[in-house]
Amino acid sequence: MGKVVTLGEIMLRLSTDTGIRLAEAETFHAHYGGGEANVAISLANYGHDVTFASKVPANNLGMAVKRHLQRYGVSTEALLVGGNRLGTYYLETGVGERGASVIYDRVGSSFAQMEKLEWDLANLFKGVAVFHVSGITPALSLKWQELTIELIRYAKKAGCKISFDSNYRKKLWSQEAAGATMRKILPYVDYYSAGKLDALYLLGIAPINNQSKPEELSYYYQEIQRLFPTISVLYSTKRRVRSASANDLVGTLWMNQKYYESNCHEINPIVDRVGGGDAFTGGILHGILQQQEPQAMVDFATAASAMKHTVQGDCNPFSQQEVADFLAADSGKINR
Amino acid sequence: MGKVVTLGEIMLRLSTDTGIRLAEAETFHAHYGGGEANVAISLANYGHDVTFASKVPANNLGMAVKRHLQRYGVSTEALLVGGNRLGTYYLETGVGERGASVIYDRVGSSFAQMEKLEWDLANLFKGVAVFHVSGITPALSLKWQELTIELIRYAKKAGCKISFDSNYRKKLWSQEAAGATMRKILPYVDYYSAGKLDALYLLGIAPINNQSKPEELSYYYQEIQRLFPTISVLYSTKRRVRSASANDLVGTLWMNQKYYESNCHEINPIVDRVGGGDAFTGGILHGILQQQEPQAMVDFATAASAMKHTVQGDCNPFSQQEVADFLAADSGKINR
Amino acid sequence: MGKVVTLGEIMLRLSTDTGIRLAEAETFHAHYGGGEANVAISLANYGHDVTFASKVPANNLGMAVKRHLQRYGVSTEALLVGGNRLGTYYLETGVGERGASVIYDRVGSSFAQMEKLEWDLANLFKGVAVFHVSGITPALSLKWQELTIELIRYAKKAGCKISFDSNYRKKLWSQEAAGATMRKILPYVDYYSAGKLDALYLLGIAPINNQSKPEELSYYYQEIQRLFPTISVLYSTKRRVRSASANDLVGTLWMNQKYYESNCHEINPIVDRVGGGDAFTGGILHGILQQQEPQAMVDFATAASAMKHTVQGDCNPFSQQEVADFLAADSGKINR
Amino acid sequence: MGKVVTLGEIMLRLSTDTGIRLAEAETFHAHYGGGEANVAISLANYGHDVTFASKVPANNLGMAVKRHLQRYGVSTEALLVGGNRLGTYYLETGVGERGASVIYDRVGSSFAQMEKLEWDLANLFKGVAVFHVSGITPALSLKWQELTIELIRYAKKAGCKISFDSNYRKKLWSQEAAGATMRKILPYVDYYSAGKLDALYLLGIAPINNQSKPEELSYYYQEIQRLFPTISVLYSTKRRVRSASANDLVGTLWMNQKYYESNCHEINPIVDRVGGGDAFTGGILHGILQQQEPQAMVDFATAASAMKHTVQGDCNPFSQQEVADFLAADSGKINR
Amino acid sequence: MGKVVTLGEIMLRLSTDTGIRLAEAETFHAHYGGGEANVAISLANYGHDVTFASKVPANNLGMAVKRHLQRYGVSTEALLVGGNRLGTYYLETGVGERGASVIYDRVGSSFAQMEKLEWDLANLFKGVAVFHVSGITPALSLKWQELTIELIRYAKKAGCKISFDSNYRKKLWSQEAAGATMRKILPYVDYYSAGKLDALYLLGIAPINNQSKPEELSYYYQEIQRLFPTISVLYSTKRRVRSASANDLVGTLWMNQKYYESNCHEINPIVDRVGGGDAFTGGILHGILQQQEPQAMVDFATAASAMKHTVQGDCNPFSQQEVADFLAADSGKINR
Amino acid sequence: MGKVVTLGEIMLRLSTDTGIRLAEAETFHAHYGGGEANVAISLANYGHDVTFASKVPANNLGMAVKRHLQRYGVSTEALLVGGNRLGTYYLETGVGERGASVIYDRVGSSFAQMEKLEWDLANLFKGVAVFHVSGITPALSLKWQELTIELIRYAKKAGCKISFDSNYRKKLWSQEAAGATMRKILPYVDYYSAGKLDALYLLGIAPINNQSKPEELSYYYQEIQRLFPTISVLYSTKRRVRSASANDLVGTLWMNQKYYESNCHEINPIVDRVGGGDAFTGGILHGILQQQEPQAMVDFATAASAMKHTVQGDCNPFSQQEVADFLAADSGKINR
Repeated sequence: MGKVVTLGEIMLRLSTDTGIRLAEAETFHAHYGGGEANVAISLANYGHDVTFASKVPANNLGMAVKRHLQRYGVSTEALLVGGNRLGTYYLETGVGERGASVIYDRVGSSFAQMEKLEWDLANLFKGVAVFHVSGITPALSLKWQELTIELIRYAKKAGCKISFDSNYRKKLWSQEAAGATMRKILPYVDYYSAGKLDALYLLGIAPINNQSKPEELSYYYQEIQRLFPTISVLYSTKRRVRSASANDLVGTLWMNQKYYESNCHEINPIVDRVGGGDAFTGGILHGILQQQEPQAMVDFATAASAMKHTVQGDCNPFSQQEVADFLAADSGKINR
Repeated sequence: MGKVVTLGEIMLRLSTDTGIRLAEAETFHAHYGGGEANVAISLANYGHDVTFASKVPANNLGMAVKRHLQRYGVSTEALLVGGNRLGTYYLETGVGERGASVIYDRVGSSFAQMEKLEWDLANLFKGVAVFHVSGITPALSLKWQELTIELIRYAKKAGCKISFDSNYRKKLWSQEAAGATMRKILPYVDYYSAGKLDALYLLGIAPINNQSKPEELSYYYQEIQRLFPTISVLYSTKRRVRSASANDLVGTLWMNQKYYESNCHEINPIVDRVGGGDAFTGGILHGILQQQEPQAMVDFATAASAMKHTVQGDCNPFSQQEVADFLAADSGKINR
Repeated sequence: MGKVVTLGEIMLRLSTDTGIRLAEAETFHAHYGGGEANVAISLANYGHDVTFASKVPANNLGMAVKRHLQRYGVSTEALLVGGNRLGTYYLETGVGERGASVIYDRVGSSFAQMEKLEWDLANLFKGVAVFHVSGITPALSLKWQELTIELIRYAKKAGCKISFDSNYRKKLWSQEAAGATMRKILPYVDYYSAGKLDALYLLGIAPINNQSKPEELSYYYQEIQRLFPTISVLYSTKRRVRSASANDLVGTLWMNQKYYESNCHEINPIVDRVGGGDAFTGGILHGILQQQEPQAMVDFATAASAMKHTVQGDCNPFSQQEVADFLAADSGKINR
Repeated sequence: MGKVVTLGEIMLRLSTDTGIRLAEAETFHAHYGGGEANVAISLANYGHDVTFASKVPANNLGMAVKRHLQRYGVSTEALLVGGNRLGTYYLETGVGERGASVIYDRVGSSFAQMEKLEWDLANLFKGVAVFHVSGITPALSLKWQELTIELIRYAKKAGCKISFDSNYRKKLWSQEAAGATMRKILPYVDYYSAGKLDALYLLGIAPINNQSKPEELSYYYQEIQRLFPTISVLYSTKRRVRSASANDLVGTLWMNQKYYESNCHEINPIVDRVGGGDAFTGGILHGILQQQEPQAMVDFATAASAMKHTVQGDCNPFSQQEVADFLAADSGKINR
Repeated sequence: MGKVVTLGEIMLRLSTDTGIRLAEAETFHAHYGGGEANVAISLANYGHDVTFASKVPANNLGMAVKRHLQRYGVSTEALLVGGNRLGTYYLETGVGERGASVIYDRVGSSFAQMEKLEWDLANLFKGVAVFHVSGITPALSLKWQELTIELIRYAKKAGCKISFDSNYRKKLWSQEAAGATMRKILPYVDYYSAGKLDALYLLGIAPINNQSKPEELSYYYQEIQRLFPTISVLYSTKRRVRSASANDLVGTLWMNQKYYESNCHEINPIVDRVGGGDAFTGGILHGILQQQEPQAMVDFATAASAMKHTVQGDCNPFSQQEVADFLAADSGKINR
Repeated sequence: MGKVVTLGEIMLRLSTDTGIRLAEAETFHAHYGGGEANVAISLANYGHDVTFASKVPANNLGMAVKRHLQRYGVSTEALLVGGNRLGTYYLETGVGERGASVIYDRVGSSFAQMEKLEWDLANLFKGVAVFHVSGITPALSLKWQELTIELIRYAKKAGCKISFDSNYRKKLWSQEAAGATMRKILPYVDYYSAGKLDALYLLGIAPINNQSKPEELSYYYQEIQRLFPTISVLYSTKRRVRSASANDLVGTLWMNQKYYESNCHEINPIVDRVGGGDAFTGGILHGILQQQEPQAMVDFATAASAMKHTVQGDCNPFSQQEVADFLAADSGKINR
């Protein structure tokens, strides 16, 4: 099993029960998560040696984050302690036609306010196969735009493969700013999670007409790869949102100059879709680390993502065996 | 924003969690609601100045009602305190093929036992644009049949528009009694919520053949209007009950001699359908008070009703902006 | 109403909320159940005089079992107290594509470790119309293979009709062992719950080609009856597992040399499917005891089974009237 | 073990969690209880053959009552089904200095509105050793004042010992009315639960000076016995209310012309004091039926009452063995 | 009843169940509160016309605050909507020897970041009898030190009595800064809540020797009044912290040149002590507005404070009648 | 910080809410714990490098154990996976006079059924400062009596200090068997947790008269040390059980030929006393590893134990800093 470092912000999510609005809620459920932390947990569950690097405040919420990560066997040696606060967000769960609604309260967090790279980088990246980071990190501050690139360069030089998840969030930065930064990052990237919208609006790739055919995504993947030839793997999910309670999910992968796609998973009902994309990324990186065949890789990753939708919380708690059994099984039966 | 008075009974609902039967339940959820109170809350949430008139006992359940109404900004100045008890009902939530089951325990309530109009009517209706009442109130007692008409006459004279929701409940009175009373009420009514069944069985309108076509409802609306020409707006929802967990909902409106219909909302899963009709009425009255276009009015009202089905409790807690966003949005997405 | 004895193991089920995994669960729901106990409760709810015979430990878990059975009016006079422990199992509820997962922890239970028939059999079977037992009991130990046959012989001699539910569980014994034992049991059996898989793999009946047609099941039922001519009633459910949250259910019955089938119930969402088969058996035995027409019997039994899926817990808590109302009703409506 | 019949009203109690007020509560806990029902359950738990006679409505709340009683092995053969409603009451649990507060909503219940004795009395009292009833029953209506006496006369004639619990409730009737009725009842009574306040205010016994000494209660017991010489056993608890969370409890007994008193139980914290008196009565009647020594009887009954305070709900769920172990044990230890 | 304005920050409190630590908690309870908001609710519950002025963000947490205040009848006309976030804090409830622990996360809140007085002050203070503010507000920013004085001057000029609660919080500012600001505020103050520690460390009053005697507090109250002669009423509670679960509470009052003290309330167990001081202040201001006798005033206020400790949440939900009944009652009894 | 290995069984505890009996409970709380696991977690929380060695089944309950330990930073490298089941026990929480009651269901567990030492012992004990085990392990089977001694010998030889907690459980073995085994173990032991009862009944030390004086315990400690001179540290807690809800706790220590005792902690209310002794042991071992002064050591350990009583669950979740702050603080205050 490979050694992996993921780095990013981790937040406290406060959510209500389905059918209860935030403004009347008497209790909130507490979950801890963030894109890179969720990927770290997936990989640790599959048996990899994973470290999550971040910064949390020196209080019991910081301790909660530490315990959350340790619970799944993620190393917290690079979890810095200090700064002012843990970023939080409030989630009013969607149901049926009504989508979820989110209030972000992440400004001023210990991680977002970092001014320099406080980790011992030489030590952090020693023997690491893959370094994973996402587009949320450079979106947190101008300083983090610099720091993210600095990190990636350092990791690349230290021999890591660079995994980057686009994860564009319009509430954090503009398409222009994101595009400019990403174009600086992508020349170092090996594995890139991005889709048609990233290609069109962040990377300025010209549109193509035949929509919603597999060929369409192949085109964008190829175009991205043409622009950034270090990228060897491209992947993303296609989600058909029937309602907040029912989605269809297909995983896609571009690898070895070929397009792969999983079967479609009808996810109904959705228990919690937060972290569904991260579970997919976790599955893909696992496949890469395990040197699986591309089709097996995208099937596994999509199954992992579909399974994530069936449990509360941001992270995917299933083991490699459980995902494999899910893939193999007729679905929905009691196993007795 | 307009000034509105609604008047009627408000009850304590005691319900079980989905999948738990009443006879084994260890806990009941408490909600307070009633048709006219629910309409009052909808309108207050949309920014109108609303008073709910009723009577509750001088104990902490009466206090609970007061706090429930105030929470949403409904004035409780006309909430009389006295009498013997708060009406209650028990709801065993339905699921899938199994419909909900209800035990009414409302006999002898403070409101039902009123013998005269104890409000200062002159004050109650001063400056009021719309007075809303439903067919449940005259069904509570012979005395209330008289009092309801007295109230409506007084309000009409005071310059209010009269809004009346048919709300026929066979457990409370016969079709004959209801029809006779409603025929006395309708000559004063401006806005009337009723459907085909009301037309056929309460108002004695002759049936028409071409069922389940829009033209059918137009016919009944026109016939009602012919009988009671003061009515300028007629409206109701058409609900296709796929199961206790999934309904299709369409709103209909007759206004300016024309029939309007909303898109169909596929409500799946239903979190709580109690109050769905009241949310629709609240939306229509809001449209009238705001002088919206009929199509916008019925679209908004149906959206509000569909949203109500996604939250626990009898009342619709959404603001005008939230309903408008829901109408505009692709449904079911996380907004981040 | 008839007098019935059912006999078997009853266990504590510890299950998690939907969307919560066992390994992270902070609370477990406790339910008590077992095939024969569930049938006993169904029949008691329909007004029959039912005794459940089993053995539970002399502690508060044994007391819990007693209270569970008494709550529904099942006699616990034949509930022996002693031995080492109550069998338990852990259920991680399935949802959508992800099936439920079960951990059995039933070895060494008070019932499974019984070495002889400790009941006063003469008294137990006095005046009893039907004795019901299932294939789980002989699967518990070699000793129980002997004891089960001994019991059935005794009951038969005492004038009881013998009801037997195949209930093959591959985790408990092999197809060979099960088939051998069942072939010893079936010559005494009057009412037999079994399906195509039992016919093929336990009873060695040759397969037939025209699959998924009603004629197919008729064939297997006839073949079974040919082998064991004392059997007068054969029945089972056909379940189409769309997902762990949605199943289609049809009840089938072979009686008076004729095949009967219920309408199909679309069960969506499933609240708890454990005990769904036992609820069907309870309905069939009720029909037999009431001498209902075969079609009414299978319709009632399937409705009872579908209703069971809408409530938490192993047993079917509905009364005969409630099942009848469910059958008669348009589904999914609020009854007010 | 003896055969016992208790008769009275049983109600649904709706209570809030400690620290949550009724007017803001989102959930209520449901418990079923009533003085005579609670005594019935205590005695059934001790192994006696007990029937509880009452009347409940033909709905799922009536069913809930039936299941509650059956759960503890109380026969519901004399539980009539019919009438309008189940009496309810709301309990806002007290804590520390703040006492509990109660809203009664029991008017018009199926039991209270009974107009005649609908049971088959000959059958009801056949072979019954003790018939137990309390002063709440005649307080429910003028009709019930007659019916209670009629019942007691019938039971006495049928050979039952009559057990009567004074249970004076000032919210239900005046001291005058209660005193008059009780003076008609007491000439038939064998076992009487009453205290100093009953003696003074209901039975008009002259006060005595030396307060709070054992001799004081002896005086009142003797005076009562002098007036009603059929009474052979008198008993009650003395409760020192330190706060709503902490009480001291002593049981007292007058028997064989002698005064007995238990040790003092320091009950802290109180989990739920409702039914504490009924648990004491259950213990005394058990002692009588078992022909225990008076000191053992009052010790057992007081222990049972103290134990009741440590569990949620109206009834005492402990077995005879558990009460005996509690009496024998050093308190408060883990038994492992 | 008088007209009152209170002004300050209101926050979301996220707390755990007793015995559950923050770092492992899966759910948080949500309560909304702040010193001045809590006082506003107390006064509204006693029947006064109260407005709470503050600023909350334009999201559903801001809406939650509005609904919380309205629920108790507090006017939210001066509740501004805007800015970045709602201040929050996390509370790990204390129990026994272990005190509560708090994580503040209030920096950058909509209220704290106000740069000018955005209310229409002329309208806000029109006809207002008392304006209440606390020492937390000037502690929020340098700007708020200015704004607080500006507000108080404006209110004073508009004819309000000024009520000021010292509420010194060492985590927000130093004793020097607090003392300097308070010395600027106190010349305008009429009713001042402060104690010995305020006198010593903020106002620089010389210590006196005879500790823990009533005379001691009289001395400090007199010294404060000597320095700031506009102050006509001084008050505070004396709390003996036996443990986090048990406190003794005495209310003290200096008025008409005389010292008054309530009886001691033994509060055990404490359900929630947050807001206990605000409930006391609410009681004192109610007494002033009602022109009660000083002894009655301090007795009522202390009772209200003691009652607050028995309920969850920051605010005191009891009515004037309930507090009066509590004062009159023997404590801890069921009232039936 | 030192390196520590603890070894023993870990079980699933299923407990009810206070005031809810096992036989009626609808939910159980799940906690994982065992003496040696609890000590491991305490030491990990204090910053030590701790490994817990045990064996759990290859299912999600085994996974739950792993996640529980990892959450607190305990290494699970020596957590073997295999065998039949996880030992469980049921706890009905005590309250007031009523003690807790426990049902053990631990027979046949993966750990108890081990037949040989399956760990790589050379690796397990490499660089380990302290090896901790308790008297429960040899009580599990005759095989474990041998294996325990084998383990201790190996560890001793590998250079570990041996820590042994007597932990005598009469339900597992007789005093004779325990005494015989312990006398074989103690010659290897360095740190021994035992008290007067161990001295008298297991080790056969003659009693001494002056009870309940500090000198008494000194006598027994000295006698034990005389018999087993390798023991350098002896310790235990003295607990005065006022009730199941209130205990007084004093820690005692014999070290450097001197007796030390902590202050008395009044623990009221007790939230959960399970694991209180293990928290004390954890504190003592921390003191030893940190080379603290004996008085500081016993004060810290007793504080840690007292704190454990204030939280749910078997393990002590507090950090060294939190225990130190607790020791230093005036108790029971809100820290703001």
